[in-house]
Amino acid sequence: MRPSGRAPDEMRAISIETGFTKHAEGSCLISFGETKVLCNASIEDRTPPWLRGKGEGWVTAEYSMLPRSTHTRSMREAVKGKLGGRTQEIQRLIGRSLRSVVDLKKLGERQITVDCDVLQADGGTRTASISGAWVALRLAVDGLMKQGLIKEDPITARIAAISCGIYKDTPVLDLDYPEDSNAEADANFVLIEGGKIAEAQATAEGAPFDEEGLLRLLRLARIGCDRIFTAQADAVRA
Amino acid sequence: MRPSGRAPDEMRAISIETGFTKHAEGSCLISFGETKVLCNASIEDRTPPWLRGKGEGWVTAEYSMLPRSTHTRSMREAVKGKLGGRTQEIQRLIGRSLRSVVDLKKLGERQITVDCDVLQADGGTRTASISGAWVALRLAVDGLMKQGLIKEDPITARIAAISCGIYKDTPVLDLDYPEDSNAEADANFVLIEGGKIAEAQATAEGAPFDEEGLLRLLRLARIGCDRIFTAQADAVRA
Amino acid sequence: MRPSGRAPDEMRAISIETGFTKHAEGSCLISFGETKVLCNASIEDRTPPWLRGKGEGWVTAEYSMLPRSTHTRSMREAVKGKLGGRTQEIQRLIGRSLRSVVDLKKLGERQITVDCDVLQADGGTRTASISGAWVALRLAVDGLMKQGLIKEDPITARIAAISCGIYKDTPVLDLDYPEDSNAEADANFVLIEGGKIAEAQATAEGAPFDEEGLLRLLRLARIGCDRIFTAQADAVRA
Amino acid sequence: MRPSGRAPDEMRAISIETGFTKHAEGSCLISFGETKVLCNASIEDRTPPWLRGKGEGWVTAEYSMLPRSTHTRSMREAVKGKLGGRTQEIQRLIGRSLRSVVDLKKLGERQITVDCDVLQADGGTRTASISGAWVALRLAVDGLMKQGLIKEDPITARIAAISCGIYKDTPVLDLDYPEDSNAEADANFVLIEGGKIAEAQATAEGAPFDEEGLLRLLRLARIGCDRIFTAQADAVRA
Amino acid sequence: MRPSGRAPDEMRAISIETGFTKHAEGSCLISFGETKVLCNASIEDRTPPWLRGKGEGWVTAEYSMLPRSTHTRSMREAVKGKLGGRTQEIQRLIGRSLRSVVDLKKLGERQITVDCDVLQADGGTRTASISGAWVALRLAVDGLMKQGLIKEDPITARIAAISCGIYKDTPVLDLDYPEDSNAEADANFVLIEGGKIAEAQATAEGAPFDEEGLLRLLRLARIGCDRIFTAQADAVRA
Amino acid sequence: MRPSGRAPDEMRAISIETGFTKHAEGSCLISFGETKVLCNASIEDRTPPWLRGKGEGWVTAEYSMLPRSTHTRSMREAVKGKLGGRTQEIQRLIGRSLRSVVDLKKLGERQITVDCDVLQADGGTRTASISGAWVALRLAVDGLMKQGLIKEDPITARIAAISCGIYKDTPVLDLDYPEDSNAEADANFVLIEGGKIAEAQATAEGAPFDEEGLLRLLRLARIGCDRIFTAQADAVRA
Repeated sequence: MRPSGRAPDEMRAISIETGFTKHAEGSCLISFGETKVLCNASIEDRTPPWLRGKGEGWVTAEYSMLPRSTHTRSMREAVKGKLGGRTQEIQRLIGRSLRSVVDLKKLGERQITVDCDVLQADGGTRTASISGAWVALRLAVDGLMKQGLIKEDPITARIAAISCGIYKDTPVLDLDYPEDSNAEADANFVLIEGGKIAEAQATAEGAPFDEEGLLRLLRLARIGCDRIFTAQADAVRA
Repeated sequence: MRPSGRAPDEMRAISIETGFTKHAEGSCLISFGETKVLCNASIEDRTPPWLRGKGEGWVTAEYSMLPRSTHTRSMREAVKGKLGGRTQEIQRLIGRSLRSVVDLKKLGERQITVDCDVLQADGGTRTASISGAWVALRLAVDGLMKQGLIKEDPITARIAAISCGIYKDTPVLDLDYPEDSNAEADANFVLIEGGKIAEAQATAEGAPFDEEGLLRLLRLARIGCDRIFTAQADAVRA
Repeated sequence: MRPSGRAPDEMRAISIETGFTKHAEGSCLISFGETKVLCNASIEDRTPPWLRGKGEGWVTAEYSMLPRSTHTRSMREAVKGKLGGRTQEIQRLIGRSLRSVVDLKKLGERQITVDCDVLQADGGTRTASISGAWVALRLAVDGLMKQGLIKEDPITARIAAISCGIYKDTPVLDLDYPEDSNAEADANFVLIEGGKIAEAQATAEGAPFDEEGLLRLLRLARIGCDRIFTAQADAVRA
Repeated sequence: MRPSGRAPDEMRAISIETGFTKHAEGSCLISFGETKVLCNASIEDRTPPWLRGKGEGWVTAEYSMLPRSTHTRSMREAVKGKLGGRTQEIQRLIGRSLRSVVDLKKLGERQITVDCDVLQADGGTRTASISGAWVALRLAVDGLMKQGLIKEDPITARIAAISCGIYKDTPVLDLDYPEDSNAEADANFVLIEGGKIAEAQATAEGAPFDEEGLLRLLRLARIGCDRIFTAQADAVRA
Repeated sequence: MRPSGRAPDEMRAISIETGFTKHAEGSCLISFGETKVLCNASIEDRTPPWLRGKGEGWVTAEYSMLPRSTHTRSMREAVKGKLGGRTQEIQRLIGRSLRSVVDLKKLGERQITVDCDVLQADGGTRTASISGAWVALRLAVDGLMKQGLIKEDPITARIAAISCGIYKDTPVLDLDYPEDSNAEADANFVLIEGGKIAEAQATAEGAPFDEEGLLRLLRLARIGCDRIFTAQADAVRA
Repeated sequence: MRPSGRAPDEMRAISIETGFTKHAEGSCLISFGETKVLCNASIEDRTPPWLRGKGEGWVTAEYSMLPRSTHTRSMREAVKGKLGGRTQEIQRLIGRSLRSVVDLKKLGERQITVDCDVLQADGGTRTASISGAWVALRLAVDGLMKQGLIKEDPITARIAAISCGIYKDTPVLDLDYPEDSNAEADANFVLIEGGKIAEAQATAEGAPFDEEGLLRLLRLARIGCDRIFTAQADAVRA
């Protein structure tokens, strides 16, 4: 029934290739099926102006899609001269998610920016970004700890995100583009290892849904995030 | 326990003053306690370029806070030269919510833009905006129907929105600013008359929450939206 | 003869509602007939860079029209990404007018910004803005004096502004929109209590005018400003 | 008493060098003493969108100061990415002034843009711009008439502008920079050949002025504009 | 003597991986050593406004560096709100180079845009971009020909580019970053298969160079471009 | 054969009028035939942020064309809100060229900005700009030395630039607009007194060229720059 032939609770193949670029303090290419996002974490010694001198750090993210990551080419935001609403919404979500598992005081007065650049899009770019951004962040913080610049680990847990939705009346996990563009409802969950919710966003695209529908989507998200937590653990151990 | 002395499931006073400005096809000033938003609906005969000739209409929204609607003055976005991420996120949410209760084909080839300008902010500006925007939209559509420009009512239901959150470990309804800035979790629900969910967004600000927490927030939202639906009905009848 | 039936030297009803919003240090909603402008004065402790350390303050203003304050909706300047020429011209005029009655040394190293946001427009928005901005400024300065932050009153006089024009060959006072859009000449005068001129701007829209015409407009402006001075005095006393 | 030693009603030397650049349909370099403005009129066959198909033309102006036309270098507006308020105010004034002596119907469906670029500034750049812009416009229209593209002359009169001000309590004509930066009041008059007023703008910089002061400035302006009208007549005859 | 131990006329390893992304009509990842550029060609059916109806097509390019493609993170141009001078200079060069080997009439009324996004930078990003862009263009045009949309091949030759420079007084081929940042002179040559020059740009960074130096750099460029032509041929054949 | 009737190695008349404006520390109007560029050098006591405290200075340039310096009027970059690619490319070239003959340490912690504003364009505006900018820079530095603010001359040599190209199969010197728009190849050389090359840029517009062609253009450039060096020497001596 799903265009891809997957079972409702079946995720696409996840792969996380660490060290994809060499300059970033933490780098990985994460794939959820054909969705591919390059996540690079950069450490800078200065924090945003409003945090200076407070003895804590900051974690933020930027998100962008390459012009031809999608079916048809879209204009670069640098050419338009401004960031679109969707881009800003997504990068705020990635940053907020990462900060929910970082103790900013333990990070010290430095900023880590994770750039999530979508090389190829097939649905779920924001959730792949969050999941990959955590890996890039983990690698960057590992480097700080190895150099002795940080004593205690500021990362408190793993965090992962997945989309789910109601497609042809059935709740399904990890929507690809053909599903995403036809789903009746579309949700993104950001979950913390252990199962707590950092962020839940559900939108009725066609028919509105009810409490039961929301819960079924959440339960699918748990299945998906568990798969991602395992892939993250494998990636940073490698 | 709440700074305002309200019970956990107690909303602030709601008032909706229709006809607040005279040029707009639909206009109201909505207040949730000290939060005051001016909602003006404007009808234009042309739709966005990508819809032209398709025989359907469009409903969209813009959101802005007056510079001194808040405790300290903030710079105008017109002076900065661009819309901030929060503004774009909110106006996309308002537009999406309104469209979920409008049959765009029945609207015909016209666009209705609802401007939500926050005159005074005390928490919950986006949910007051959605709730007031529906009233402005209703009034504008009523005008089109009275003039005979539309035969069948394109509005399929009332829609309302309310914030709730976990404040000092207790789920509470309709956060004002002192609560909003200290809540452990913050959620916004957009509900359709009858109880279905158009949009659910929940964010852990401090500790992450669980399924049970999410459900308790949703149930509070039902209580709040029922109050708003009544106020909307009274306002448009007047 | 005037569309409104007013006598040539008859102003529209003036009302000034102080305390219209609660966060601003000085706030009023001023109406000249159907023209309604919200004026909010904000005090900030820092002055513009070029004034720092000089022991004096600054008074400035910003002006904006809500998108649907007018007959047809206009695009937000924040969406266009820049302030229009008319907006800048008006806000420079408001700021210059206010500063002409403020002793900036007595104000001390602080800046007062008066935001003039037009909620509804029916001609004369810039003159209503100046007249209301003075009230907001007066209230903000009164607050500083009550708190003992300023010893001597930095405001040297009341200031008010009114439009007049030549409409169907007759000089008339306080043009509303139907007159404004058809006047042969259009003038704005900013007068100081006592009758001196802070600013005079007269433009021939159709036929040019002569010295006599300019003087007749100025004399009408005196009548109008006297009415406004009284309304200002009543408002700040209340 | 004047820094330049001029009598109160004495203008600086005026020179108008036509044909200063070769591509423009009308071109002159106008000097008021050390203030030098290059005025180039360009004819385009299309009018602004809101005028199309109405059988009339448009006249507009743009104004800019070269970065080092002034005592200290100022940043280019192209580098800042936007036009400043002063620039927009001035170019609106130039355009409005020119249009007040052009019959736009006789001009036909074409636009004339007069670019006023200040090569060197020493006070009075906006009035020199208006006065020189008229010459460039006159030359451009002469060309259209010679080519037979226009039958009847659309220019109804000469127009000129001059600044005057109250300097050390004395009304003086044609302020140069040292006077301009110290004047108590500063006025710009745009007069039409024969003495009628197209535009009057007077601003109190220090002490406010009265009706008598305004009239004395206007009378000085008449003297100045008569001198300019003569220079314009000589220039276009040459 | 070279930091990399290469001989003066020795290029870095070249690799060209075609089909790197799946949506673009032509796609490759080109590497010159550690410099990696993703080149995606997109075909659109409409040409720029100034070409419409002329029966010919257009080829253009855009260039961008990912924020962390370099040693230290640089701000996104989309965040700055404008394209930098270097970016524009490079993308103009890429487009000009590609057009020099395309018969735009044979291409028909369509535009091909080649996006060159630098994933990792180690010197020579503009020359890798030109060399890879040709491959992406070739693949996109091959697709048009296979579909029968184009009858005759519009590509007239292969084109490649390489940097060379004078490093420690020795002319060297294909500068990597450590060389590039210390070279006395820096040149980029765009050569057409067969040896003709499409573009030559040489800049003295330290000491100026003479005719002999320019010629020696050009001869090195021939060696490098021959290597690239072979790699391009292999890549498109694969 | 050349539209102007010039011999292939014949330059247009060069004139350099120093002191063209009075505020700049160094000023000249340079003409290559009908191409006229106003070059003004401004000295500022502060260097760019990244140079502060390093004990050296900076030399930079800005370039702009007046809207009607060309055959048809072009929109101001200040109106577009951004600098075009061509403008940035040219101003980077001018700045780089000037810096190649300045010892920045000897200049001390100050910045010299040379503004090159094209009053009239007829081909070769960038090369006239470089050649004139050197004169403005020389005059500004002479002033610093006369005031004793600089001990040793930081300018190490004269620098000049000229365009050449292949026009109807013949290499020609100093292209004017009719040649420039029809040349098969177009080159710009920046040469240092004595004959060394600071910058060489050659582009095939139609047919690509070969080594021999490049050398013939370079030799023409030598002839042209020698003429310019003489004109520069005469101008600064005057």
